[in-house]
Amino acid sequence: DADQLPETTKNEVISFFESAPPLKGVAEIEKSLKEFVDRNASSSVNGRANRVVCVTSGGTTVPLEKLCVRYIDNFSSGHRGAASTEYFLKVGYSVVFLYRRGTCQPFCSSLPDDPLLDCFSVSNDSNIEVDALHAEIVKRAITENRAAVAEGILLKLPFTTIFEYLQILQLISVSLRDLGPSAIFFLAAAVSDFYVPWESMNLHKIQSASGPLDMRLAQVPKMLSVLRNEWAPMAFHISFKLETDKHILLAKADMALKKYKMHMVIANELSTRKEEVIVVTEHEKVTVRRDSIRAGAEVERPLVELVVDRHSAYVKKLDA
Amino acid sequence: DADQLPETTKNEVISFFESAPPLKGVAEIEKSLKEFVDRNASSSVNGRANRVVCVTSGGTTVPLEKLCVRYIDNFSSGHRGAASTEYFLKVGYSVVFLYRRGTCQPFCSSLPDDPLLDCFSVSNDSNIEVDALHAEIVKRAITENRAAVAEGILLKLPFTTIFEYLQILQLISVSLRDLGPSAIFFLAAAVSDFYVPWESMNLHKIQSASGPLDMRLAQVPKMLSVLRNEWAPMAFHISFKLETDKHILLAKADMALKKYKMHMVIANELSTRKEEVIVVTEHEKVTVRRDSIRAGAEVERPLVELVVDRHSAYVKKLDA
Repeated sequence: DADQLPETTKNEVISFFESAPPLKGVAEIEKSLKEFVDRNASSSVNGRANRVVCVTSGGTTVPLEKLCVRYIDNFSSGHRGAASTEYFLKVGYSVVFLYRRGTCQPFCSSLPDDPLLDCFSVSNDSNIEVDALHAEIVKRAITENRAAVAEGILLKLPFTTIFEYLQILQLISVSLRDLGPSAIFFLAAAVSDFYVPWESMNLHKIQSASGPLDMRLAQVPKMLSVLRNEWAPMAFHISFKLETDKHILLAKADMALKKYKMHMVIANELSTRKEEVIVVTEHEKVTVRRDSIRAGAEVERPLVELVVDRHSAYVKKLDA
Repeated sequence: DADQLPETTKNEVISFFESAPPLKGVAEIEKSLKEFVDRNASSSVNGRANRVVCVTSGGTTVPLEKLCVRYIDNFSSGHRGAASTEYFLKVGYSVVFLYRRGTCQPFCSSLPDDPLLDCFSVSNDSNIEVDALHAEIVKRAITENRAAVAEGILLKLPFTTIFEYLQILQLISVSLRDLGPSAIFFLAAAVSDFYVPWESMNLHKIQSASGPLDMRLAQVPKMLSVLRNEWAPMAFHISFKLETDKHILLAKADMALKKYKMHMVIANELSTRKEEVIVVTEHEKVTVRRDSIRAGAEVERPLVELVVDRHSAYVKKLDA
């Protein structure tokens, strides 16, 4: 049966979760997810549940020591996930935003690195003032982000390690299961391929006294398979493939599409990722470019439009 | 001659810098350093040059690929360096703040993680307002940070990789050399012990198709020796030793003091580092604790007081 996971994957997954440090705040996360799903399943439009997307964003870390001083990180500003979240909200989706702590937030992607010190000053009469240059984007960041959270259409859940990321992703997928094909998984996070299993990890800081450091990292189990086949088998699944070598990019995207039975793989190359991406599905390869004429136009706008179009077709087909 | 570096260290250092990717913006960094030193050497008090401290802060990264997707990072919020910078400025030192991009900034250490979204709202008449709870710390952060930069007593220089960190540290030490014993190096950054030499690094993203990943990391040359003996031989040198295992902490601190001829090593344990540190010098071991009675008191206040006291004695002894 093609829908079944191989035994080895199953065992690797079980052992990954069993050996992971326990996730903190599980009850709170489950509660906020339940409230989010109840709200968005009941506020139906035309008798159909609202559409929901889980956007993952930023890089996961891999601790090298239990009392963590050193870790391996995956470069990701979180810009793709944050900007995509904005466009999903605009077209009426509700969003669970699973993001790496400290990375880019929705509606904040055009702000300077340190908005507080770079955009504000204190006037002579001791009022805090935003400078004229940044006033509009700062206002927009605060109002739209706050409004989305207050209206209950944006749920933000932070992670740091690969363990937290996969543990929370599992909680989300279980919560969204009742939404069936109305849910999208838009997996833009840069997830570690390799990790140090918790039980084989150093407790203390690795000492540097003698010679080079040899490390053996294990492969992270292929969680995309588990998410796709077991955690959320009815949802619309989109994964990302980032490469620095454009010659292998499309082949790798095709492979991911088939291997994990994704509905869509978004292929992007590190150096051009803000200009264009290639959307790979079973039937097509579509290059999506940002509108280079409009100032501040982002590639995420046409990308989300395309995703929404294909998702609608998917829902319609399953409804028929 | 005890002041000489061993040939092997010298060669390792030369090869580290020769193989490192070229630092961007060297001319600008040199210009800002020259202006900083000119200003602070000329604005002398009692005929003596102003005292200057180079505070390093935050962790360095080690890229695992040239087109960097993955890297090893050292955990550090930058709180120690940022808070210490505030206290050095308060007692009249000028500060070169060499910090990891995105880490804690001076006068901002008691702000929430995301000050813009957590402290501000937009009023009905479309003004941006800070909430009452955070108004004072936000005002203080903006005014004091801006004032210090504007007065030319705080120069902020950001880094990300181990290569950038050591390249900029070298530029700073050369610039501060004329200040002789008036300069302190307060090396609070969490610097990588291991790295992948640039020439042996993968160009492209490491592929995860087959099995576990074996990595061999080389030791970073002992730059503390080079800084102490060659780059800034007259300055007052303070390094930090962070361990997770308290049983080896003091022995490691003593070893660093002797091996690198530091004037002071500040020993701290990961779990108690915000409560207390142990200042280790040739003649003493002093435990410095934060004032647990005063709300918001930080251990960096008494720590900087002690450093300034010992630095004054050092300057006086060399002047005599």
